[in-house]
Amino acid sequence: MSWDEISESTCQIAGALSLVGDRWTLLIMRELFLGATRFDQIRTQTGMSSHLLTTRLKRMEADGLIERRRYDAKSPRHEYAATAKGKELDAVLLVLRAWGLRWKTSVLGAEPAIELVHRKTREVMGPDWTPPQHSSPFTFDTAEISLHALFSQERDSKLQSFRKMRRRRTKDPS
Amino acid sequence: MSWDEISESTCQIAGALSLVGDRWTLLIMRELFLGATRFDQIRTQTGMSSHLLTTRLKRMEADGLIERRRYDAKSPRHEYAATAKGKELDAVLLVLRAWGLRWKTSVLGAEPAIELVHRKTREVMGPDWTPPQHSSPFTFDTAEISLHALFSQERDSKLQSFRKMRRRRTKDPS
Repeated sequence: MSWDEISESTCQIAGALSLVGDRWTLLIMRELFLGATRFDQIRTQTGMSSHLLTTRLKRMEADGLIERRRYDAKSPRHEYAATAKGKELDAVLLVLRAWGLRWKTSVLGAEPAIELVHRKTREVMGPDWTPPQHSSPFTFDTAEISLHALFSQERDSKLQSFRKMRRRRTKDPS
Repeated sequence: MSWDEISESTCQIAGALSLVGDRWTLLIMRELFLGATRFDQIRTQTGMSSHLLTTRLKRMEADGLIERRRYDAKSPRHEYAATAKGKELDAVLLVLRAWGLRWKTSVLGAEPAIELVHRKTREVMGPDWTPPQHSSPFTFDTAEISLHALFSQERDSKLQSFRKMRRRRTKDPS
């Protein structure tokens, strides 16, 4: 069975998986919420190849998860933004993060790489935090976000590597 | 960047995605909770090839998401069961289902293929339902489950096709 067939299933879980059941898609959504909105920024932080990222962004745009917009009237460059549909995938990321904290899927163990505090209640959003009941669909806009020092370092070092690589290419355009 | 590198990231979302950021893994977890626990049953309902399913089940066992057990002392056959770690992925499936209901990712639109009623509160678990706050990690064990007639039909018809295919193979062992 191909994924085209699966997206015709009556099951909403199967349907949702046919749109986002791919680690890259969800990792791109993570980047958009962390503020990496331009092609090079997303590529740097996810480590995706240009080709893969281009294909994936096109697919996500076609599926209505993201929009592409000019980020400057004078420049031909674009940035990407989550649509309302894409933004609501934050709830999936939140649950994956909680599961990851509980089952220690990162070297940080039970310490969150992305620290979240719920704006309204000031609760720290740990592994057992769930959104208030009967509230609007959860998005990370309801949270104050800060990064663990080690995750910040990890992101900075990816940025440095990317810049170094680009300088090398500019000097030696072979 | 490969997924081995990503699983070394400090970010729990990345870590969780490296274990489950694959539609097949989550679809297999859906099957286990719907009661398809044997290899052929999972294969029939997901439409995965034998090879792909074998590889994936081994990986999931190694990652601690599922266990393989003899389902009968006299038979060499096995069945699969979610571990506690795997079972807690129900929360991810629940959120994907809610998102799928809200954004109509199936031909059923806003009607759930898998109807869920919370045992304790008798609430119908619709797209805006969230688990009670400060409760144990959500699993589908807290819900009464029934299938929409069309989803039942879809599953029956997959089972019929599978049986037909097997009869044909038995008759014509070429």
